Amino acid sequence: MEETQKTIVVALGGNALQRSGETSVKDQQAVARETARQLVSLALAGHKLVIVHGNGPQVGNIFLHEQALNTPETPASPLDTCVAMSQGEIGYWLQQGLQNELLAAKSDRSVASVVTQVVVDQNDTAFQNPSKPVGPFYVDETAARTAVGDDAAVKEDAGRGWRRVVPSPLPLDIVERKFIQNSLAAGDIVIVAGGGGVPVVQQPDGLVGIEGVIDKDRTAAKMAELISADMLLILTTVDAVTINYRQPNETPLYEVTVEEMQQHVVDGQFAPGSMLPKVQAALEFVQLREGNRAIITSPQKAIEALDGKAGTQLV
Amino acid sequence: MEETQKTIVVALGGNALQRSGETSVKDQQAVARETARQLVSLALAGHKLVIVHGNGPQVGNIFLHEQALNTPETPASPLDTCVAMSQGEIGYWLQQGLQNELLAAKSDRSVASVVTQVVVDQNDTAFQNPSKPVGPFYVDETAARTAVGDDAAVKEDAGRGWRRVVPSPLPLDIVERKFIQNSLAAGDIVIVAGGGGVPVVQQPDGLVGIEGVIDKDRTAAKMAELISADMLLILTTVDAVTINYRQPNETPLYEVTVEEMQQHVVDGQFAPGSMLPKVQAALEFVQLREGNRAIITSPQKAIEALDGKAGTQLV
Repeated sequence: MEETQKTIVVALGGNALQRSGETSVKDQQAVARETARQLVSLALAGHKLVIVHGNGPQVGNIFLHEQALNTPETPASPLDTCVAMSQGEIGYWLQQGLQNELLAAKSDRSVASVVTQVVVDQNDTAFQNPSKPVGPFYVDETAARTAVGDDAAVKEDAGRGWRRVVPSPLPLDIVERKFIQNSLAAGDIVIVAGGGGVPVVQQPDGLVGIEGVIDKDRTAAKMAELISADMLLILTTVDAVTINYRQPNETPLYEVTVEEMQQHVVDGQFAPGSMLPKVQAALEFVQLREGNRAIITSPQKAIEALDGKAGTQLV
Repeated sequence: MEETQKTIVVALGGNALQRSGETSVKDQQAVARETARQLVSLALAGHKLVIVHGNGPQVGNIFLHEQALNTPETPASPLDTCVAMSQGEIGYWLQQGLQNELLAAKSDRSVASVVTQVVVDQNDTAFQNPSKPVGPFYVDETAARTAVGDDAAVKEDAGRGWRRVVPSPLPLDIVERKFIQNSLAAGDIVIVAGGGGVPVVQQPDGLVGIEGVIDKDRTAAKMAELISADMLLILTTVDAVTINYRQPNETPLYEVTVEEMQQHVVDGQFAPGSMLPKVQAALEFVQLREGNRAIITSPQKAIEALDGKAGTQLV
């Protein structure tokens, strides 16, 4: 088994932690446990795992809760702090699920979540153009506007309803990279950069938070680059990426070359804030170094996909 | 310097992260940065540091925010998840402050917060007798009752006002102990078990969260025990523990033996939910092993206290 042990960065969809309509914490913890079961198979196969999870639904909810009670005694937190809160929240659910599954499988590997800051550029154009959907879906623009207030931007999200959108700057560096690498070197499973990481910018007297939500797939690709991972495994709600999404001629992609995938991007096949950042992250990582592999699939197909038998494989 | 390098578990008061009346996130981050400056002196002296922080004001606020908007789309989170959220929130502020201070001091040591679960006994009598104050202070019982609702328990807190109180079970084990030890072995500064850790109980199919807030000083003592630390350093708002608190004959304690301190506890000198758990944690750790030291002081006096020149020293 030794020779097949890989360092894998797993990007886990925020929506893969929450089934449609099942929004309670109990429901989300149950889904996290199920996802954990799939991930533990990867750990038992001996791979080194870094897990980057999304937080779209959760951080949106935290932000709404914060703003629902904004008084001098209990002021609302800004978005960067809300991202950090979602790292604690989802990290807890995921590591508990993984811990329980590892123990059930009689594995003595450790797992924990590391609060992670990610450096972005304060001049990133994303700050002028909010595009990342967060929080609940609303039936129409009016309902969304009523729920999130006049100051927030709202957009229609991939045919599924209206949502709040927030700035989503590109990740440039991961502040806790060395800490994470030390845990990985010790054989631990590390959950990092939840929700893409807490966005921070470099100021003269140090790092300072900035309001935004980084795309977790782009952060996962950056993480994979910085730690020289072998594979970027992007897990989402579908078994494979499709072209002609929701058309009669919708077609799943299995083995795809970089050139073919780039053409699909140019053709506008993938929705921004949804499949597009996943495809971009996969493209980015595969082009970095000979031998890098990127896969986009569902948690259920992850093991098969590793053997090249399922999912969208970018080569 | 080699021979004086110690493994120190630092317990950091939730109130030491927040000045009276300054509740905004920006204010709290500024205090965290100031506290970080004191802690970095300990790191620069070569000590291995595990930092356990409180979350009383913060977790109470999160809980209030959650309950302020409790709808099917955005359900309120239970208290164990709120504790996890506070670990992300406060962990972010603290590690950013420490990171900035380490870089300013040209140190290349890494620091990060690890989401931490702490095992408690579901039959702990604390679940029938809520005693841990969380959230804002209210002027009287009626104001507190109005703010937190009829289902919550409220109590008067050490002459400072009325607050919500929640169950505070004793910590029995730290789930992520091995992960934390690996980080420590690599030389990293680790922020752990924020707010005393997320309380979990062992069930047939694994660990499950339970609603409560563990006392962070007791958890810090448990952590110090489990990793065989040399010292438990409890940092709070006062430079030393006093007896006859707020009386004309109020007297600070400097060098105190275990027996003397136990007598002060029996005499009811220390307020439950405030100084009492700190004193109990210190007593617990010092009695474990010959040579264990425990100090209670302020962040400002920490370095002097290590040299035995300030603070309450339990020997």
